[in-house]
Amino acid sequence: MTPSSGSQSDRLILAAVDIGGTKVTASLSDRNGILGKVLQPTVKTGENTALPGQVDSMIDAVCGRAAVAREDIAALGISTCSPFERRDGQLVLVSPNICGGLAPNGRRLPNDWTEIPLEAELAPRYRRVAIDNDCITAATAERLFGAGKGEDNLLYVTWSTGIGAGAYVDGHLLLGKNRNALHLGHTYMNRDDTGQPLCGCGNFSHLEAYAAGPAIARQYAAAGGATATTAEVFELCRRGEAEARRIVEQAARIFARGLANAVALLDSRLIILGGSVANDWDVVDPLVREEFYRAFPPLTQEVEIRPSALERYLGDIAALSLVMPRGWIADWQKTQPWRDAPEAVRMEGKAL
Amino acid sequence: MTPSSGSQSDRLILAAVDIGGTKVTASLSDRNGILGKVLQPTVKTGENTALPGQVDSMIDAVCGRAAVAREDIAALGISTCSPFERRDGQLVLVSPNICGGLAPNGRRLPNDWTEIPLEAELAPRYRRVAIDNDCITAATAERLFGAGKGEDNLLYVTWSTGIGAGAYVDGHLLLGKNRNALHLGHTYMNRDDTGQPLCGCGNFSHLEAYAAGPAIARQYAAAGGATATTAEVFELCRRGEAEARRIVEQAARIFARGLANAVALLDSRLIILGGSVANDWDVVDPLVREEFYRAFPPLTQEVEIRPSALERYLGDIAALSLVMPRGWIADWQKTQPWRDAPEAVRMEGKAL
Repeated sequence: MTPSSGSQSDRLILAAVDIGGTKVTASLSDRNGILGKVLQPTVKTGENTALPGQVDSMIDAVCGRAAVAREDIAALGISTCSPFERRDGQLVLVSPNICGGLAPNGRRLPNDWTEIPLEAELAPRYRRVAIDNDCITAATAERLFGAGKGEDNLLYVTWSTGIGAGAYVDGHLLLGKNRNALHLGHTYMNRDDTGQPLCGCGNFSHLEAYAAGPAIARQYAAAGGATATTAEVFELCRRGEAEARRIVEQAARIFARGLANAVALLDSRLIILGGSVANDWDVVDPLVREEFYRAFPPLTQEVEIRPSALERYLGDIAALSLVMPRGWIADWQKTQPWRDAPEAVRMEGKAL
Repeated sequence: MTPSSGSQSDRLILAAVDIGGTKVTASLSDRNGILGKVLQPTVKTGENTALPGQVDSMIDAVCGRAAVAREDIAALGISTCSPFERRDGQLVLVSPNICGGLAPNGRRLPNDWTEIPLEAELAPRYRRVAIDNDCITAATAERLFGAGKGEDNLLYVTWSTGIGAGAYVDGHLLLGKNRNALHLGHTYMNRDDTGQPLCGCGNFSHLEAYAAGPAIARQYAAAGGATATTAEVFELCRRGEAEARRIVEQAARIFARGLANAVALLDSRLIILGGSVANDWDVVDPLVREEFYRAFPPLTQEVEIRPSALERYLGDIAALSLVMPRGWIADWQKTQPWRDAPEAVRMEGKAL
């Protein structure tokens, strides 16, 4: 054994994986920063163990690129879209965005999975595996390193392809019986369903079905506008196009009601907004504020709303925060090593 | 000093006060049980210190009846309708059900209070004062002594003149920045307000405005039915009267959506329902269940719904649980002394 390989094994290496409905990222870090990162479209074909297999092969790939031995990985943090159920105490993924067997009629995925045995497949292959919902981990990342430093009553909300959240109340991170807390996108925003939009989960009238990115694009097309991406609808709104403006205003108003509902239950002091729709901050900020602060003043008037401070790095740091040792935190707060992290390398994969 | 008065002062005596929008109760307990209880309509005239004054005079009265010296009270637990704000760190009551200056147009109260200095007035007069929202304290009482013993993910909901809740998540009682967590009645249940009912807080479309007891009676009258109390509407529903049935079904459906929204945020395992409307359990139970379990199964299918096990004693035990020493809890769980508590004595009061 050479001295250099000896010093290599002494380093604490952590792996962080972020599983979304469209892409998966995997990164490796040591105490000084992020060593490497790979990215791949989320696998949705084959057996229901294909996604854990993808995670594993992506970690192999990033190990190769970063010249890290797989055995040197001390812990793996997985931040994922959800929800979860438990089988024999272990978390399985039951996300209708990935499991074709759970998607409602009319939304086709190329598999018939009803659950993905994420923990059972991956736990035996690593020294330690920690799994949580990607918005719950984002709340921790923002509280440790981002816009919510030291805040004990914090609500983080992703406004993107889906809508989800994570929260600290009285300094306690809310998890719940199956770690499914803060599924804000799946709250009803209407008393009945007549004429209301269908959510990816199969219910009508959910916040996500009104206000998530794809809902905004869909409403614009349905209103007789040309087919446009969500970003294009926002651009049209900026340029003063009346229909785009009406649709963005409506989505922002319903989204703000969702925020007010969460605050009525959690008595948060700070809301942090992340995700691709919240990136159009210039447009949504005044709209969201106007509606939010109209709600019962004793519950809303002391609440502050801020954009995420980690947006580009949020997914990586969120997954990493699940397994990061206490000793690293003060270092990372000071040096912010994610700011000069290597760009993600896009992996091809024939099974995708 | 006689031996008997000496032994009297050695006893640990606790006072418990429950402040509602219509009545206040005050009780005294020692380790063996409840010593006495008085009840009076909530004072709503005079200065904004009138309510703390009422609490104080009721404690004097129950001390007199129970032959307890006021100085022997070790702690006072106050369970109250809310919300709260803080002034110089102390809780003030800003409840639109009591403060006339906060009630929306069209709801007249005989005062112009905008806040009640509950903690500032009472804290100096007792050795220890603890104050919390009445549904938050009820969650603790049900978890210690009632239908939720030992449950770490518990949602307690009052369905009564108002709708409110209290919750444990991962064994942690949710309080929030101003102890205003779980104001479930003030969550929006509609995407817009056109034609929707006005809530006591001044907003439209809140759960409380659709489904609380008075809303049920009001909807029945508005639908052309005779003027009837909420209890009478439930009785008509039981007898098969179509309009009463339609209105109760609608209220139960919207209430169940409110429960599903709370569970989507808290991932509770157990919901406990208390309050006067939930007392019509035979009618509401199947209606609430049908709608609740239609919501996104991974979030709702493992949730159990049970009625309160403490209903008649809940207010007293809830307030008491704020200050009850650990040593008493196992005793009270075993002996359930509230079951033979003395009846409340109704006090008259010219100022009310």
